[in-house]
Amino acid sequence: MNSDKIDKVSFLGPKGTFSHEAASYISDNLISYCSISEVMQSVVSNECIKGIVPIENSIEGPVNLTLDALIHDFDLNIVGEIIIPINHNLLAPYGVNIEDIKEVYSHSQALAQCRYYLEKHNMNPNYTVSTAEAARKVSEGGKSYYGAIGTLKAAEIYGLNVIDKNIQEKSNNQTRFVVLSKESTLTTGHDKTSIAFSLFEDCPGGLYEILGVFAKNNINLSKVESRPSKEGLGHYVFFVDFEGHQSDDSIKVILDTLKSKTSFIKILGSYPIFNSVDNVIDNFN
Amino acid sequence: MNSDKIDKVSFLGPKGTFSHEAASYISDNLISYCSISEVMQSVVSNECIKGIVPIENSIEGPVNLTLDALIHDFDLNIVGEIIIPINHNLLAPYGVNIEDIKEVYSHSQALAQCRYYLEKHNMNPNYTVSTAEAARKVSEGGKSYYGAIGTLKAAEIYGLNVIDKNIQEKSNNQTRFVVLSKESTLTTGHDKTSIAFSLFEDCPGGLYEILGVFAKNNINLSKVESRPSKEGLGHYVFFVDFEGHQSDDSIKVILDTLKSKTSFIKILGSYPIFNSVDNVIDNFN
Repeated sequence: MNSDKIDKVSFLGPKGTFSHEAASYISDNLISYCSISEVMQSVVSNECIKGIVPIENSIEGPVNLTLDALIHDFDLNIVGEIIIPINHNLLAPYGVNIEDIKEVYSHSQALAQCRYYLEKHNMNPNYTVSTAEAARKVSEGGKSYYGAIGTLKAAEIYGLNVIDKNIQEKSNNQTRFVVLSKESTLTTGHDKTSIAFSLFEDCPGGLYEILGVFAKNNINLSKVESRPSKEGLGHYVFFVDFEGHQSDDSIKVILDTLKSKTSFIKILGSYPIFNSVDNVIDNFN
Repeated sequence: MNSDKIDKVSFLGPKGTFSHEAASYISDNLISYCSISEVMQSVVSNECIKGIVPIENSIEGPVNLTLDALIHDFDLNIVGEIIIPINHNLLAPYGVNIEDIKEVYSHSQALAQCRYYLEKHNMNPNYTVSTAEAARKVSEGGKSYYGAIGTLKAAEIYGLNVIDKNIQEKSNNQTRFVVLSKESTLTTGHDKTSIAFSLFEDCPGGLYEILGVFAKNNINLSKVESRPSKEGLGHYVFFVDFEGHQSDDSIKVILDTLKSKTSFIKILGSYPIFNSVDNVIDNFN
């Protein structure tokens, strides 16, 4: 087997997006795919050894495509998480000054998040399909008076000058990415576990009982979310993240208890709690 | 005050969509708006007496724009709910036979939900911004060999023939709409109440405690959902629907208890539990 091939890590493209930035902390041997399912499929088919997908954003909420695919379509383990601050930057070709820029290109969400900055500088917003596409477009315009809102990675890829950093309004905009693999991880002593489950029908106190299992064992929950199970209104899959590794004795007991109290349960993975990007780099390199 | 004006009911347009169908059970005096916030604003500004917006779909999940707007942007009461089965129909100009139809227009979600039907009949999918726009487009083509996937309402509006009914794959596809008003409702004895709340920080057992208040009082929860509070990852607004009316003595006690256990709580409304469309028609007409 070609070791170069199996060391590849897939991410949701195009290059120069926040997904690319997150993936670049995991590996230098990256390959981009056009959809979240294609990233997951690349790991299932052994084309890549790991895949990185966004799972939630602090403003927009869960990435439904990722949650649904992890439950319904793919059996992969979450082996890591990376949290990236979503900072937007004004990029332009070298030689262009900030006061020359009248038209700014970017993805609609990025433009919306930098609205005050654009108004203050009398810049007109123009839509592109991604922040990376905006950077590409502006880089091809030569020394035109166009700017792009994009990542530092996009500036690097498309040879653009970073005119201004962190131009967005909200400072608490973060995206959480997960690293997916066919393998599983060993305990590090500072892990979290992600599970998904559904309740028995006609069991309105079911969620209360499940949360009680954690509360009685003093296990902290870092996330509780719901998605429709696709079986009709009022039927949910709950996603819960909690402290501990599935190989810890105390967690094994909890997971066994949950199995008897749920109609469906899937352990999505145990992995080190995100601490810093440096930590992620150490873990995966 | 012009009574014609205050009796108007707003919905999310365009005409001929499922939102239009839901709204038509409430009133004949309808006015369509282009966005969920505009529908809500029309009620706040007294332009309309009620507004109807989608709040969740059994396959796609919550309508985030509706949940976020009810929490952050508007103070309106939910005074009713309507659940509509999402059935797709093949529409074409009168005189066109099913075997003549080679190209079919519709919204991407509708086309996706009818994929097997289209494949079986060798029909090519073509995208439009809404199912209603597809019907409009096909109606203007005269006796061309185009079909549209749309509602029975759209067939009626655009004078199209219903070639085939219920052509979608999944049978459990339903959308729940809520009726919004500045007024509130009286108890009917068969009501539900919708609330939203956030937990105190550093209180991981908080949700368990809240659900316990309902469990101990034997109150059935029909919905538990979470949305990011927009204050950073791990901070949520929970949406809970439960049986009972906020004016019932037993529910008053529960709501008072919840106030002391939450950092934020908003009662979104008490309203009759959806039973049938006929019931809704009786309630609102």
